[in-house]
Amino acid sequence: MIDLRSDTVTRPTAAMLAAMSGAETGDDVYGEDPTVHALEERVAGLLGHEAGLFTVSGSLANALGVRSLVAPGQELLCEERAHVVRAELGAHAVWHGVTTRTWSDPRGHVDLDAVRRLMTPDAGPYLVSTAAIAVENTHNFAGGTVQPLEALRELRALAEPVGVRLHLDGARLWNAHVATGVALAEYGRLFDTVSVCLSKGLGAPVGSVLAGPAAAIAEARVWRKRLGAGWRQAGVLAAAGLYALDHHIGRLADDHAHARLIADAVAEADPSAVDPATVETNVVILDVGDRAAGLVERAAAEGVLTGVVGPGLVRLITHLDVSADDAKRAAGVLAELVRA
Amino acid sequence: MIDLRSDTVTRPTAAMLAAMSGAETGDDVYGEDPTVHALEERVAGLLGHEAGLFTVSGSLANALGVRSLVAPGQELLCEERAHVVRAELGAHAVWHGVTTRTWSDPRGHVDLDAVRRLMTPDAGPYLVSTAAIAVENTHNFAGGTVQPLEALRELRALAEPVGVRLHLDGARLWNAHVATGVALAEYGRLFDTVSVCLSKGLGAPVGSVLAGPAAAIAEARVWRKRLGAGWRQAGVLAAAGLYALDHHIGRLADDHAHARLIADAVAEADPSAVDPATVETNVVILDVGDRAAGLVERAAAEGVLTGVVGPGLVRLITHLDVSADDAKRAAGVLAELVRA
Amino acid sequence: MIDLRSDTVTRPTAAMLAAMSGAETGDDVYGEDPTVHALEERVAGLLGHEAGLFTVSGSLANALGVRSLVAPGQELLCEERAHVVRAELGAHAVWHGVTTRTWSDPRGHVDLDAVRRLMTPDAGPYLVSTAAIAVENTHNFAGGTVQPLEALRELRALAEPVGVRLHLDGARLWNAHVATGVALAEYGRLFDTVSVCLSKGLGAPVGSVLAGPAAAIAEARVWRKRLGAGWRQAGVLAAAGLYALDHHIGRLADDHAHARLIADAVAEADPSAVDPATVETNVVILDVGDRAAGLVERAAAEGVLTGVVGPGLVRLITHLDVSADDAKRAAGVLAELVRA
Amino acid sequence: MIDLRSDTVTRPTAAMLAAMSGAETGDDVYGEDPTVHALEERVAGLLGHEAGLFTVSGSLANALGVRSLVAPGQELLCEERAHVVRAELGAHAVWHGVTTRTWSDPRGHVDLDAVRRLMTPDAGPYLVSTAAIAVENTHNFAGGTVQPLEALRELRALAEPVGVRLHLDGARLWNAHVATGVALAEYGRLFDTVSVCLSKGLGAPVGSVLAGPAAAIAEARVWRKRLGAGWRQAGVLAAAGLYALDHHIGRLADDHAHARLIADAVAEADPSAVDPATVETNVVILDVGDRAAGLVERAAAEGVLTGVVGPGLVRLITHLDVSADDAKRAAGVLAELVRA
Ligand SMILES: [Ca+2]
Ligand SMILES: [Ca+2]
Ligand SMILES: [Ca+2]
Ligand SMILES: [Ca+2]
Ligand SMILES: [Ca+2]
Ligand SMILES: [Ca+2]
Repeated sequence: MIDLRSDTVTRPTAAMLAAMSGAETGDDVYGEDPTVHALEERVAGLLGHEAGLFTVSGSLANALGVRSLVAPGQELLCEERAHVVRAELGAHAVWHGVTTRTWSDPRGHVDLDAVRRLMTPDAGPYLVSTAAIAVENTHNFAGGTVQPLEALRELRALAEPVGVRLHLDGARLWNAHVATGVALAEYGRLFDTVSVCLSKGLGAPVGSVLAGPAAAIAEARVWRKRLGAGWRQAGVLAAAGLYALDHHIGRLADDHAHARLIADAVAEADPSAVDPATVETNVVILDVGDRAAGLVERAAAEGVLTGVVGPGLVRLITHLDVSADDAKRAAGVLAELVRA
Repeated sequence: MIDLRSDTVTRPTAAMLAAMSGAETGDDVYGEDPTVHALEERVAGLLGHEAGLFTVSGSLANALGVRSLVAPGQELLCEERAHVVRAELGAHAVWHGVTTRTWSDPRGHVDLDAVRRLMTPDAGPYLVSTAAIAVENTHNFAGGTVQPLEALRELRALAEPVGVRLHLDGARLWNAHVATGVALAEYGRLFDTVSVCLSKGLGAPVGSVLAGPAAAIAEARVWRKRLGAGWRQAGVLAAAGLYALDHHIGRLADDHAHARLIADAVAEADPSAVDPATVETNVVILDVGDRAAGLVERAAAEGVLTGVVGPGLVRLITHLDVSADDAKRAAGVLAELVRA
Repeated sequence: MIDLRSDTVTRPTAAMLAAMSGAETGDDVYGEDPTVHALEERVAGLLGHEAGLFTVSGSLANALGVRSLVAPGQELLCEERAHVVRAELGAHAVWHGVTTRTWSDPRGHVDLDAVRRLMTPDAGPYLVSTAAIAVENTHNFAGGTVQPLEALRELRALAEPVGVRLHLDGARLWNAHVATGVALAEYGRLFDTVSVCLSKGLGAPVGSVLAGPAAAIAEARVWRKRLGAGWRQAGVLAAAGLYALDHHIGRLADDHAHARLIADAVAEADPSAVDPATVETNVVILDVGDRAAGLVERAAAEGVLTGVVGPGLVRLITHLDVSADDAKRAAGVLAELVRA
Repeated sequence: MIDLRSDTVTRPTAAMLAAMSGAETGDDVYGEDPTVHALEERVAGLLGHEAGLFTVSGSLANALGVRSLVAPGQELLCEERAHVVRAELGAHAVWHGVTTRTWSDPRGHVDLDAVRRLMTPDAGPYLVSTAAIAVENTHNFAGGTVQPLEALRELRALAEPVGVRLHLDGARLWNAHVATGVALAEYGRLFDTVSVCLSKGLGAPVGSVLAGPAAAIAEARVWRKRLGAGWRQAGVLAAAGLYALDHHIGRLADDHAHARLIADAVAEADPSAVDPATVETNVVILDVGDRAAGLVERAAAEGVLTGVVGPGLVRLITHLDVSADDAKRAAGVLAELVRA
């Protein structure tokens, strides 16, 4: 089976498992796991931030980051297909009372005009105050799109003077970094808090990291426990994350090449299904209309797993467990199916 | 002083106060206030619904209505300037975990294409499910605009078959009814829950009513108490509401005429400030750019109170306590100021 | 009917209604109702506090007070039958995340040993920190009992040095004041926040007041609106409260005498049902075992309404609408029934 | 260092790490991790329940279990030092609106009289309804005490007929089972939901399991994700749990013997510090008054780590990483220090 449903399906490699078995551990609830500490410092450093917190998921890292920026009853702005508002089951509202408004952008980009229109900081005692804006980079549901750096800089220039803060959902920031060559810290420093995920393209079994100011991270650590997500000898998992940082960032370029290869093959078979120029990283979205469900089913029958992510939209994600041969084979299968 | 900041500033008239003094009362927390009962039944009947609940504010009626339709972690959709998402201080998220996404429409109307794009009922265990859509009629921050009845019918036709429910924020539904001649129940029956306000154009000192199915209203009654908004001999206030229903609905036509009169005068002085054709009810929004703050200040100095509701936007609302002479005088003052 | 179910059933008198009709009003959501202002200042002054907030219920005043003292995830301690933990439908937990532990005292008194055992201020990042203690005076479900002043002073001495704060649920503080002669402010100053109710023994139709530090009250005002309990021309209700403060405090002594009169009559008929020495204010609790439900029913048939408040416990509350003749008649009916 | 601060400090053994490295994994967010499935079924079976959910912590398993039994605004009863109310940072209130009342028992036992007094099921629309009761077995802060089986049976007999449900915090249920010989399922079947912990005495690095009815567990799975605690290839951790179930339950008897050995030694040196008869499992609490802080410090200087858990109370917990020699050495050090 070639599993292109998501890069979350990556499994730990033998070398990663060896690193996990050899990890020094301690009780992380007591702040005593040296491998967790090493991972938190390493990621914070990469992102240009003071401190880091190792969390069980990217959803938790996002929610803890947003909590540090937005008080109950205040507002977070984001694009309407952002993970924070689509794929976290309303967590931000449920346990912290965050209200949201959204803009719509076909590529999932920051829409600076919409931000100017929506943003209402310090709105007084009758209206909702905008406290923060969340940006997802790369943007998963928009097709692994990379946020233009210049727009992020303009966003910072708009928000900072009026006290509106910025959270970066960087679950796939590694992919943006590899695709553009922009340093992780160059992205990271434009935001007040940043989440990154280790268990997607990087291939670790479990875990994300939230980076931000030391005081915010200290508070996030308490809230992590309040949500029942403190963990004990988490160093076994942190070791996988450290291994992934050492060995699995650069190779994301292969995933991007594989995604483009698949898109090229499908576009050749049916140009209406996908424009390969829109494939910037490891996500390919095929717009196949009524054929979506059937396509997914037939591809599965041929050993290629994909998923429906919207009306008529089939999504493929390449990753560590998809070899060059896998990608070629998937490209062939899918091209054949869209041609049919 | 001619106070055009809001129709909430209306004060009870002498006849209304007499009705209040003569009201029979009881302990409404025990469900024993006959005047409250009468008001709740009366409003429910007007809106074509089974039952009603008298609440201390329109915000509370909205939040209780939405609570009955949306479970924690589910989603409510609405226009981006809707009262529920702008002017209720995040209540829906804070005490019930409702998450929101928004569309943008210049007139505050329902955007059926946006609804089709955003609506995601029964989204499974990973994604946020859309549970309800809220519509504000008339739409305050969009300028007292009336929702086109046909669009509301199409919205119902879209939402009902997929189990997405509809809440009507009808704080100023009375104005829509008077402006269009559409029966209150014709609007009301298109929605699962409806809130209406008695303390704005209708002139009661305090109170709104939530209407809906009997079971939902029974639950809302418990949640009203849970939020600390159960009240005892509330019949003194309900009597004002009943008086207003008897005497103050038809006269809203005067408020609409006064609003148009002011808009006409201002447009004659500066056509760029307002298009009178956009003034459908009792709200006038003047777009005066950099002059907004100065205009509000100078109008106040001339005895006309107005408010800024967005960058460059000055809002005027006519109501029960603004006579024809008041309206003429305000029109003169404002025309003079925009001309200058 | 002689309604002894609760002092909440009191209805506004003709003189009170006249005061309401004559009240000057304004939009209290905008902070512009002079009668509301007057009431808030008057009550704050009586209680020895900086500022006051007029609320729709005592439950809301309690919850807003506790919110100002306890952060989400922190702890409030109280007696196990306190109104805040029994009769507010979990509000403190639901919308503010307050967790509670309780002690048990037969008279509902502060148990200083229990407080010493339970109180855990600044408990660090793993354990729940005690932020505040709530005391109810008089204590309704314990039988209108008055908290001994000396114990309140010791409680203050215990709590203040370690940063644990105190909330007084003074819904019936007026009764404690009249029963003991201790000044309202002497009670009030021992607490960080205080709620008092105007719609019980004082006879106003609706409303309570929260008193406390000016900054806490300003925040409570915003949260009152967030909970949907901001109100517009609330001066009509505030006027009733001011009238009650002028005319209905001293007369609570009559209610106390009436309660004792009933207790004496019942005790004479059945000494096991009640010890009149325990009747300190306007509440009488009869312990009649299996006879409770029957007693309530038969008393109602004789025109005397009472209520069951626990296994075998029948509660009577005297108030403004129960005359001396009513009390004598109720005493006769109940004595007859317990004798039977 | 001999670390007796908690049994959470246990580190995975080499054999456990080997089991982890060899585990088959999948994406558990998609329900595709076979090792997680195996663990969940195994634990559910041991406890006599339909289904299980693997969670990142015991706090999360408790909170998800309680959520399935108690609606927002309803009440959970428990002993005043229970983990759910002392050591979960108010989670139950914060994200689910659970309110709590507590009884006090010196051994942390169920107090059936208190339950009879406090329990108020179906309390109507004005009062808090008791929805569930939580019992901790063994009870950590009371000193690893075992709940008498007969009392648990009586609790069930009291609660079930009135619809009040029961949650078992069985973080250390393994210890109760080993100490008493009562089958895990015999305990488990008395409760509606049960949590057990794998990362304490059993020695797994991370993880607990919630067991209960299949429908409740399915909902808990969604709420686990909503709280940000869904995890991907969690089979690496589940494998450690399965290994622990195979190899580390029986040996808890050694921990109990070690705890008793230490208690005996200390009691011989200072009989006032501890009564060895109270040491039922792997927890020893020394009551040493003013000497507590000094004792902890001096023991640490001698290589024995302990902790203060209350005024004058020092706690020691034996576990997998404390050998018989370690226990003897710790006994000697502590006996010497209390004698001094
Ligand atoms: Ca993975
Ligand atoms: Ca492969
Ligand atoms: Ca009004
Ligand atoms: Ca009353
Ligand atoms: Ca009478
Ligand atoms: Ca462990």
